Amino acid sequence: MDPAADLNAALLRAHPAAARCLSPLGRRLYFPKGIPVQSREAAGARFNATIGQLRGADGHAAPLPALAPMLQGLDPDEAFLYAPQGGLPRLRQAWARRLAARAAPQAAPSLSLPFVTGGITHALSLLADLFVGPETNVLLPDPAWDNYVHIFGTRCGARLHSYRSVGPAGLDLGALEAGLAGLEGPALVVLNLPSNPGGYAPTLDQAEQLAQLLAAQPGPLVVLLDDAYQGMVWEGGHLAQSLLHRLGALADPERLLVVSADGATKELFFFGGRVAFATFATPPAAAPALEEKLTAAIRVSVSCASSPAQAMVATALADPGLQAQRDAQHADLAARWRALRAALAAEGVEAWPFNAAFFALLPVQGDPEALRRALLADGLGVVSAGAGQNLRLSYATLQADEMAPVAAILAKRLRA
Amino acid sequence: MDPAADLNAALLRAHPAAARCLSPLGRRLYFPKGIPVQSREAAGARFNATIGQLRGADGHAAPLPALAPMLQGLDPDEAFLYAPQGGLPRLRQAWARRLAARAAPQAAPSLSLPFVTGGITHALSLLADLFVGPETNVLLPDPAWDNYVHIFGTRCGARLHSYRSVGPAGLDLGALEAGLAGLEGPALVVLNLPSNPGGYAPTLDQAEQLAQLLAAQPGPLVVLLDDAYQGMVWEGGHLAQSLLHRLGALADPERLLVVSADGATKELFFFGGRVAFATFATPPAAAPALEEKLTAAIRVSVSCASSPAQAMVATALADPGLQAQRDAQHADLAARWRALRAALAAEGVEAWPFNAAFFALLPVQGDPEALRRALLADGLGVVSAGAGQNLRLSYATLQADEMAPVAAILAKRLRA
Repeated sequence: MDPAADLNAALLRAHPAAARCLSPLGRRLYFPKGIPVQSREAAGARFNATIGQLRGADGHAAPLPALAPMLQGLDPDEAFLYAPQGGLPRLRQAWARRLAARAAPQAAPSLSLPFVTGGITHALSLLADLFVGPETNVLLPDPAWDNYVHIFGTRCGARLHSYRSVGPAGLDLGALEAGLAGLEGPALVVLNLPSNPGGYAPTLDQAEQLAQLLAAQPGPLVVLLDDAYQGMVWEGGHLAQSLLHRLGALADPERLLVVSADGATKELFFFGGRVAFATFATPPAAAPALEEKLTAAIRVSVSCASSPAQAMVATALADPGLQAQRDAQHADLAARWRALRAALAAEGVEAWPFNAAFFALLPVQGDPEALRRALLADGLGVVSAGAGQNLRLSYATLQADEMAPVAAILAKRLRA
Repeated sequence: MDPAADLNAALLRAHPAAARCLSPLGRRLYFPKGIPVQSREAAGARFNATIGQLRGADGHAAPLPALAPMLQGLDPDEAFLYAPQGGLPRLRQAWARRLAARAAPQAAPSLSLPFVTGGITHALSLLADLFVGPETNVLLPDPAWDNYVHIFGTRCGARLHSYRSVGPAGLDLGALEAGLAGLEGPALVVLNLPSNPGGYAPTLDQAEQLAQLLAAQPGPLVVLLDDAYQGMVWEGGHLAQSLLHRLGALADPERLLVVSADGATKELFFFGGRVAFATFATPPAAAPALEEKLTAAIRVSVSCASSPAQAMVATALADPGLQAQRDAQHADLAARWRALRAALAAEGVEAWPFNAAFFALLPVQGDPEALRRALLADGLGVVSAGAGQNLRLSYATLQADEMAPVAAILAKRLRA
């Protein structure tokens, strides 16, 4: 009996595209009937002597007094003991409800229960474990978050390709189409909307064209949606929710696997928490096999995500005040965005279209790295990494009244 | 210019054994001058518009009100914003002091600054990224924590070998020596003392013989010390601290790289926190290259460890009451250990020597998995995974007064 082979066969029946896209490691992964499974089986036993974690006489977590009072309003069992490999159940349920609410009024596809990871990077890295090996063609946006190249290239040794994501008129669908046409064999394409470093969300029309283009691919193809900045769109008429729902509804599992990575990192402004999720749009029959692959991958990478941060996010998601707090923070970010846009226009500093997330992308002449250093000498820190012939400016770290002096510094160095 | 090649050349000069043991991925890894580096360079700038994380008007973390009050007594900048890739600086310094204090009065080798990981599994997994590829011979204890096989075998595809770790007279040094003699090429050996699932720490004499045996190996060899249960030894005259210090002092960097994985998971009974450390015993000249490899590996796996748990551990380590709290918890665990030992003896249930950590290992006749299921039907949950022809009983989850009925259940099924 080979448990990985059985699992792969089950996945092939339920989701041919997913099975055909598995990397060599992805094919090897299965969740063994090890300590976590045996521990769960003993949960109802009179004496549960399975797992190497301490419980007090009342059967509950017994944190040291030096740690216990630091956490307030959280269940100590959730916050101090091991979480299951896929995350705290009520956190997963809460995120699932959040995703479902966002799908409406779109046709809601079937989604797997969101799988908790230690941040968005970890979600990408686990999905890369499953689907990206040295033979995989990976199509990345350009410009892109600089870590993509290292996750998929340095780490997995994949064959990297890129497509221009945004042109002067918004999403460059022609470039994506050409990039997809050039892929051979099992492949993975990364979409990141709103984009980092571009700070761009497409129009609703463009988003629909994008979904149609992807759904028409012959595959087998994994469409990995990096939805880190989901919902953070400051301009009406642009895509404010994940493509997961629309594309998931269109995707044929014979050809396409659609999966999203999103999380509390940006959406709840909980950067250090490292709580994110991987969620598949998949027929329900394929969900158990896909979840088992993820469970196996997290068990050998970090075992499980950090419990205090999971308990915090689960509790915050149940707070009726959360939405109003996020709305206020979004209004503040939108004000910074408007102030930056006005300041750049006033100084005549050129920028790519930007309307979302935290970023503006500024095209530059000459060496971006030299310009970055020159701006640093002027008192302004920006990023050249992964930005191509551009510089990335994060306005989330600036106040609205700082945009004018920032634009003036930029103008001195960048104005044509 | 190839930054990975430059880094590998620097490591070869400073630590030949480490360089020769690098896996293909380990050789590829370098830390790019990406967003984290560019963000640190801009830390003193008047306008720091580098990183995609929100700060309030005062320049500090601005957590949502739904999250902020859950953490008490912690610095919000530490707890809510991104930590550096290697961890919060004061946490690393505090753990370094803790390790140094434990070395005395042994000859203290030079140690790298402890590198924060998301739990012990993550430390093992990052070190496997650096040093274990499909060509690597990995020598594991038998019995062993069941996840070793999956981290080094399933994940890395390494060639696995095993050595019997404990015999009736304690550490089985002959088995380890034979196992080491059978290794060819770059290799890695895992030591886990106190052991899981054995619950055993060797005598001081045996520990010294073990260090001498390892130090005499021709190499190149990575000695990976899984020190998860460091210090949790309930019987005098046995090794109560890591071999890192003694072996680090003996190890010749031409032949041997010594590294430990330890953490707050068990030592501070903070199971869900996922805060652990990877620390090299190395000449100072090699520490920067080894740290850069780890930094690159964490950047592509989880980016950084969870901040709230890091801030909690850093703050707890600075609490003058911590030691007394740990001593009290240790006294309680020692009482459970004594009660279990007495109860097993009273019932005539055989066990391997056990004196440390949370576990007793019980040899069984017949199929351990069938016995595990039979015991579960009797109301007692134990673990068969990774335990070989034995069952693992975790007494950390039982109270002292439960040991007698537990031993009675065991006796019914196991007594010869």
